[in-house]
Amino acid sequence: MVKSESIEFKTSGDGHILDITDRVASVVAESDVKSGVVTVFVPGSTGGLTTIEYEPGLLKDVPELMEKLVPSDRSYDHDETWHDGNGFSHLRAAMIGPDITVPFRDGRLMLGTWQQVVFLEFDNKPRNRKLILQIMGE
Amino acid sequence: MVKSESIEFKTSGDGHILDITDRVASVVAESDVKSGVVTVFVPGSTGGLTTIEYEPGLLKDVPELMEKLVPSDRSYDHDETWHDGNGFSHLRAAMIGPDITVPFRDGRLMLGTWQQVVFLEFDNKPRNRKLILQIMGE
Amino acid sequence: MVKSESIEFKTSGDGHILDITDRVASVVAESDVKSGVVTVFVPGSTGGLTTIEYEPGLLKDVPELMEKLVPSDRSYDHDETWHDGNGFSHLRAAMIGPDITVPFRDGRLMLGTWQQVVFLEFDNKPRNRKLILQIMGE
Repeated sequence: MVKSESIEFKTSGDGHILDITDRVASVVAESDVKSGVVTVFVPGSTGGLTTIEYEPGLLKDVPELMEKLVPSDRSYDHDETWHDGNGFSHLRAAMIGPDITVPFRDGRLMLGTWQQVVFLEFDNKPRNRKLILQIMGE
Repeated sequence: MVKSESIEFKTSGDGHILDITDRVASVVAESDVKSGVVTVFVPGSTGGLTTIEYEPGLLKDVPELMEKLVPSDRSYDHDETWHDGNGFSHLRAAMIGPDITVPFRDGRLMLGTWQQVVFLEFDNKPRNRKLILQIMGE
Repeated sequence: MVKSESIEFKTSGDGHILDITDRVASVVAESDVKSGVVTVFVPGSTGGLTTIEYEPGLLKDVPELMEKLVPSDRSYDHDETWHDGNGFSHLRAAMIGPDITVPFRDGRLMLGTWQQVVFLEFDNKPRNRKLILQIMGE
């Protein structure tokens, strides 16, 4: 059984980390699929998906790490192509990846107690985002 | 068809890399599912999953790379929240990701000859780990 | 329903980024599966899969980022084991990961307009690559 769903939200731009766990969990719970996996996917190349413990410290640490690994205050060849100044966004997104697959059973995501599914906005301006939730199972 | 299985093991803490290939392969082979994918997932936010060639050199190189990219000898804002000193563990785990999906056919994982599925322990103390193996297919 | 397919190509070695979107899309479109996910997997430990906007700037930026994060001009313990000088390739591959899962509906990949599925060659010599495409759905 396959269910194609989606969730939408606004972001404030680079560094915005959104806890989407409850929304993903609701969509899965309301589907007719009891056991399986949900693949969350961002149809775009300036955002990423992973899990973190969603607490105030890491909401600062993760953007700082991204800034250290892929600085935003230098120019990239991508910026020469489009002049939109978000080369760093694309590089961070390629590194983190656009997909995450989470197992569920009895309609409930099998996450750890202190583990949340998060969307990482890397783009250099606020964005309207629509993520795909592909639910597979029985 | 969906089968929810799990494997458990102990780790020695940060830098411990475990080759879980044989255990994942056994669980898949013993399921009734012949072809499909297995999603391996760590329900926690201080460990990661990827593949490497499991040989002594890389068992040193991978932790050294993690130490270089996300040093453990500085404090992070996460540590201000919980004072457990494992901010670096959370950041490494967010970067590597908690899931990996491996295809299989005729009950056998379709890995390369020198490619193993590994769990990367990033936490700063020994842990008991239970990984979820969600097997999907026919 | 599960379909095991594959695509093959040659690479020119480290830094070669291949846009495999059209080939993955064709294989999915030609399968009998209308909705589901395709897991693309590299059975090897010196290549990676992610998505980027495939344009000339990023084709330079991504290899430069990899070079900065995991330099190729130093030796790694892996090189002591095999003397093939591609320790950096293994480390980059472990970081990016060997798998990507892309949802599709009505036989079409649900990618963003400026988002392509890419294979990143990290090995230090040209390679013949065969990627696994595991298509799951209904």
